[in-house]
This record gives sequence, structure tokens and C-alpha cells, in this order.
Amino acid sequence: MHPLNPAFTATFAPPVMEARRWLEGVTFPPERPLINVSQAAPVDPPPEGLRRAIAEAALHRPEAHLYGPVLGNGDLRAAVAAQFSGAYGGAVDAGRVAITQGCNQAFCAAMATLAGPGDQVILPVPWYFNHKMWLDMAGVQAVPLSCGPDLLPDPEQARALITPATKAIVLVTPNNPSGAEYPAGLVGRFYDLAQAQGLALVVDETYRDFDSREGAPHDLLARPDWDRTLIQLYSFSKAYRLTGHRVGAMVAGTGRMAQVEKFLDTVAISPSQLGQIGALWGMENLQDWLAAERAEILSRRAATRAALIALPGWRLKSTGAYFAWVEHPFEESSADLARRMVGQIGVLALPGTMFTPQGDPVGARHLRLAFANVDGPGIAELAGRLAALAP
Amino acid sequence: MHPLNPAFTATFAPPVMEARRWLEGVTFPPERPLINVSQAAPVDPPPEGLRRAIAEAALHRPEAHLYGPVLGNGDLRAAVAAQFSGAYGGAVDAGRVAITQGCNQAFCAAMATLAGPGDQVILPVPWYFNHKMWLDMAGVQAVPLSCGPDLLPDPEQARALITPATKAIVLVTPNNPSGAEYPAGLVGRFYDLAQAQGLALVVDETYRDFDSREGAPHDLLARPDWDRTLIQLYSFSKAYRLTGHRVGAMVAGTGRMAQVEKFLDTVAISPSQLGQIGALWGMENLQDWLAAERAEILSRRAATRAALIALPGWRLKSTGAYFAWVEHPFEESSADLARRMVGQIGVLALPGTMFTPQGDPVGARHLRLAFANVDGPGIAELAGRLAALAP
Repeated sequence: MHPLNPAFTATFAPPVMEARRWLEGVTFPPERPLINVSQAAPVDPPPEGLRRAIAEAALHRPEAHLYGPVLGNGDLRAAVAAQFSGAYGGAVDAGRVAITQGCNQAFCAAMATLAGPGDQVILPVPWYFNHKMWLDMAGVQAVPLSCGPDLLPDPEQARALITPATKAIVLVTPNNPSGAEYPAGLVGRFYDLAQAQGLALVVDETYRDFDSREGAPHDLLARPDWDRTLIQLYSFSKAYRLTGHRVGAMVAGTGRMAQVEKFLDTVAISPSQLGQIGALWGMENLQDWLAAERAEILSRRAATRAALIALPGWRLKSTGAYFAWVEHPFEESSADLARRMVGQIGVLALPGTMFTPQGDPVGARHLRLAFANVDGPGIAELAGRLAALAP
Repeated sequence: MHPLNPAFTATFAPPVMEARRWLEGVTFPPERPLINVSQAAPVDPPPEGLRRAIAEAALHRPEAHLYGPVLGNGDLRAAVAAQFSGAYGGAVDAGRVAITQGCNQAFCAAMATLAGPGDQVILPVPWYFNHKMWLDMAGVQAVPLSCGPDLLPDPEQARALITPATKAIVLVTPNNPSGAEYPAGLVGRFYDLAQAQGLALVVDETYRDFDSREGAPHDLLARPDWDRTLIQLYSFSKAYRLTGHRVGAMVAGTGRMAQVEKFLDTVAISPSQLGQIGALWGMENLQDWLAAERAEILSRRAATRAALIALPGWRLKSTGAYFAWVEHPFEESSADLARRMVGQIGVLALPGTMFTPQGDPVGARHLRLAFANVDGPGIAELAGRLAALAP
């Protein structure tokens, strides 16, 4: 095929689509159905009230079918601003909020305004593969920052990686794929580093609503002039089960927003109206429901921890959000193991190699298990199948 | 603000958002309301049947709220493939169709796979501003190809602009902003040129459903190995009034699709499910309705032509799709004139300067009037106000 932007051959195919292809031609007996722990997303629809709110808007609100403002509807931007101001103890106004077609797009928009070809961005490893893919395709070098055994990145190690080409540091907390919840003090130290070096700190909090800690996960939005350094990302998809509607958000300074608006105008024009209506309805009506959802996820996390810690040979390294990050006991690479697990034990999980630079031994030794969609008995069954896996 | 990708300062702010700001603080008396001919989009919602189909899906189809495949739902891809195969007399299969979050995104995805920093893409002028913005932000040079007085680009002039850095030629037909419907023979000659030179030919047919001609607007999809050269773009937004749902499509080769999938996975993950459901329902149920819509647009086009041709001093250059491209009779630049028109005659139109390279005299002399949302009496009123505009 020609012409082809060489930056595209330099990156990999979408991992989730690749993993789905492993299921092709494989049959799972009724007594042992597939356990799918590959998906970092809800598998059930949102509550009926939210579905009804979307349906009512589709029927009776003409503007639900028309273009809206590039940066999102004013009511949703204001609701996010108010919610963030309260949750983080800072002052965020609607002009510092943009609504995007999902949180992935918020990341792409932020990074596009920050870094171009030849620039560098520091990503803790294991990383979220779509972050790496975007940077590859944009010609931006993703500089890997290896996490320690606790899956936390070290600001001092990050400092040593900074060059004149560095434009930003990206943190995902709670982390995908490891689930690690970065302590507020650690996030603060990264902020201090970024601020001192004139870099942007991009904090992706897609899984924020399932953080096991109470209160604000960091104090960055309460700091003076936070919007010169911080770009914070959020997703409505996980909290309100809106993955099919594509709604995310970015919190950043107004100068940044003017640049982000250029990107979103060309790539999106405006976010889905029904998605925005659903997200707003969820924010206004589903807080108790969301608290129960969080409690359920935390209970599944506890069950997953207990089951995996008891599993001979396997080592649980980290859990949080929807994820457990585990070291497997086999010689082979996780890339081979993950494919073998589909056929041999009916489990679909993503290998660590999808979250690490090519050749990184950490990736080969680990798997990401997204336990959020598996209930208590399912988790016991998952552990049993892993225990039965032949070397 | 720092850091800032310099490619972003090199491009301009979203023109449609800028034009909306011209309305701020201006009041329009009830007896002379604003005539808005700035918008290239429907202002009414889709027919009730389509709204009901979306509402039903929101209530009763769980998958309408969940992620779908990156390249779009299989049923919609198959429907587009069948429709295009019939309409263009070629063989398009579902594997050569991608669904995107609007046609703008289809353009961005296609161009990202084709051209990177330092590459060149040929755009006929006047151009569609979002195309120019994307190329600017990607560090790709948009090489202007001036159209003649008939608003048609010349393949021989295009040939003279080709360099080793050229990756693609972009055609928008029916054109935005001029409305020009490119003759099939002309499109074919651009295809021959692109094929001979190893370039991609990107044909954006966002306004295809309002083409005044009967039958296929070109024969490219019937040519052997068309998918080595052609990338064709389509929008559901205009035909079925789905702008608020963001659904577009790309038709291209399977090798291209594998690259496009990388871009869409990071920027979109998947298109809106309700938007896709609405688009499919529209394709299957609204063909008679769409034919009537087209007839109405063509009748408004005829009324606009008649009114503008009779207007002293103004020169109608081209009409088609939703647009008339007119030369104004004043000394000032269209950029100043368009702002003045808001206050003096209550008309919002986009100046030609938004569709041409900076300093291009063609842009300064012309306006784009998007007549599609103005009925017969409104068109007469518009012409009357233009006639009354003081120098």
C-alpha cells in the first residue's frame, strides 16, 4: 500500500481487536464458558433511568440531533466543573472543561497540542497501549519510565529522563493496566517536577470512580496556577456505563482549551449529544448507584486478591480499578501464554507484552486480569482454571 | 502557555465558532430576525421514525450502550457497501468500509495514514477549512490548487504541483464552499493522475445526496484495483439529519483499513452506537424521504440562483449542495464585510477568507451563503437585505 505514513508502520495493531481474533474458531462448552477478563469496560447497559433519559431526549429534544459547541455543551461542562471543584477542593470553572468523544480522544487532543514530531513524552511502564500508539503515530517518542515492584513510578527516575525535547509526563491513576492507586504525595511530586521543568503533567483518571480511597486522590487542582501545568482527563464511560456513547472530559487552562478546540473541531466537530445528555443525567441522578457500583468493584477486587494470593506459583503484584496485574509461573512469554489460555482453560486475558516496550522482560512475565465483570463465583472459577493450567 | 506544539499556532481557530461569536451582544428585532446562512448543516431533527428507532434502541438494546468494533458495526458497514456498490456500479465489500465519528474524522484518519510532517497534500482552493486545519496541525503542507472561474480544479495544474513529497490529492464534490459538482470526467482525470503518480485520491462526498445530477457522480469504484488509489468519504449527518450523533464513513482498501483502524482505536475506540443505529435505520427506511429532501434543496438552490443573479453588483459564481459562492460588490475584504452584515442587515454568512490561503484575493472578494436552511420567502428576504447593504 502506498503512500503510507511510516509512523503508522512503527506502531502496532489495536490490542483489544487482536485479542478478540484469538476467539475466532474456538468453541467453549456450555459447562465451561469463556471467562473474559480482557475488557476494561462494563458489559451491562446503564440503569433504566438513564436509558429512559436518553430515549426521551431522542424523541423530544430536537437539539439532541444537531451539532453542539466544539468543546461540549455548557450544562455538562458546568456540572463537571462543579463536581471537580468539590471533589478536589479547587476552583475549576466551565471554561476549563472540555467534553470529548471519550477519554482516549481527550488524551489525543491534549498530546497533540503539547508535542510534535521529535518531541518526547514520559510514560510509566507498564503503559496504556493507546497512549503509546498515539504518540507513535504522531512521531512523538514515548520515553519509558519503569515502575518498581510496587508498580509506582519514581519522580527522581523521571527527572533523569528529561531532555530538552521532553514536553510532558503522563500518569494514569488508578492505573491501567496495573490498577495501582498513586498516592497523593507521589502525584504531587510529579507535579512539582513538571512545574519546575516547564512540562505538562497529564493525569488520566479514567478509573477514578473506583478508587478504593476516600476523599480527593490528589491536591493538584487546589494549587495556585494549576492550569499552567496540569491537564486532567476523565471518562464517563466506566462510571455510568456509557462506553457506546463516547463521552470523556478534559480539565485544563483556557489557553490550552483554545488549542484543544482546534483539534476537536477537525476530529470531532462536537461530541455526541445523546452521550452528553446521558452523562449529565448520570452525574445528577446516579451518585448513590455509583457508590454501590464502586462497593461491588471493591468487593470483587478483594475476592480477586484473595484468590490470586492463594494461587501456587502466581504472584499478585498490584490490584485496583478493574485490574489485577499478576506474574505467571511459566517459562513462555505472556504473549504465547495468553493465546494458549483461550484454548486450554477458556480464559481471555491481555498479556503484559501489550503494555510494555518490545522486548521488555516485565511484559513477558505478567498478565492483566480485568476482574470487574466477573462476580464472586466467577473469580473462584477463574482462579481454579489458572491453577489447572499446564506448564 | 507552555509547552505548545508549534504546528497548532500555525493554524487558525475554528471558523464556525468564530462566526458564532460575532452574534454575541447583537440583538435582532422581531420584525427582522437573523438570517443564518453560515451553517452547512440541517437545523431540524430527523423524522419521527428515526428518532423513535434511536429511542427504542436506547431503551431495549443493551449493546447500544457498549463499545462496538473499532471500524464500526458489521450491519452498517455491509449496508454502506451494498449501497455504494449499487450507486457507483462497482464492487465494494464491508471490509472496505469503515464507520467514523463523523466525516471530518474520516478525513483525519485517512490523511494521518497517508502523510506525515514535511509531506504535501494538494487541496483545491477554495478549500474546506477543517481539511486545512488538520494538515497544519499534522505538520503536512497543504498545497493550494487554485480553481478557475467555474470553481473546478484542473488536473494539469495539479500535475505541475506534484513533488516527491506529495502524498495525496483531495477533492470535495459537491464542493464545500463553492457547491460545484465536479463532472465525472474531471474526477476520472484526477484519478488517472493520482494513480500514475502513486498518490492517493481522497474524494469527500459529504453532500453527495444533494447532487443535482442523476446516476453515479463518477465511475471510480468500478475501475479495477480502485482501492489502491481511491479513498472515498461520506457523511450520514446531512442526509439523515444526524449531525449531533457523529456518523461518517470511509471506503478504502483493506490494507488502508488496517492502518485506519490504529488511528480510530486511539482517537475514537468505536463510533457512537445510537448514531450507527440511526444511520442504518435511515438507509433502510428514508430513501423516499431523502429524495424529497433533495428535491427541496434543489428548489431552494434554483430560488437562490434566481435571486442572486438578479442582484445588482453581486456575481453568483457557483451553486450546489447547500451553498452559493458569490462575489460581493464592495471594496472591503469579505472578512470585514461578513462581520458588518451581522449588525447592518442581520445576515450571518462565512467570508471567503475562511476558505482560502491567507492573503488570497479570491477569498477577500467572495462569501459562502449556505442557503439550505432558508425557504423560498427567506431567500427573497435574504436577497432584499443584500441589495440594501450600504457600501
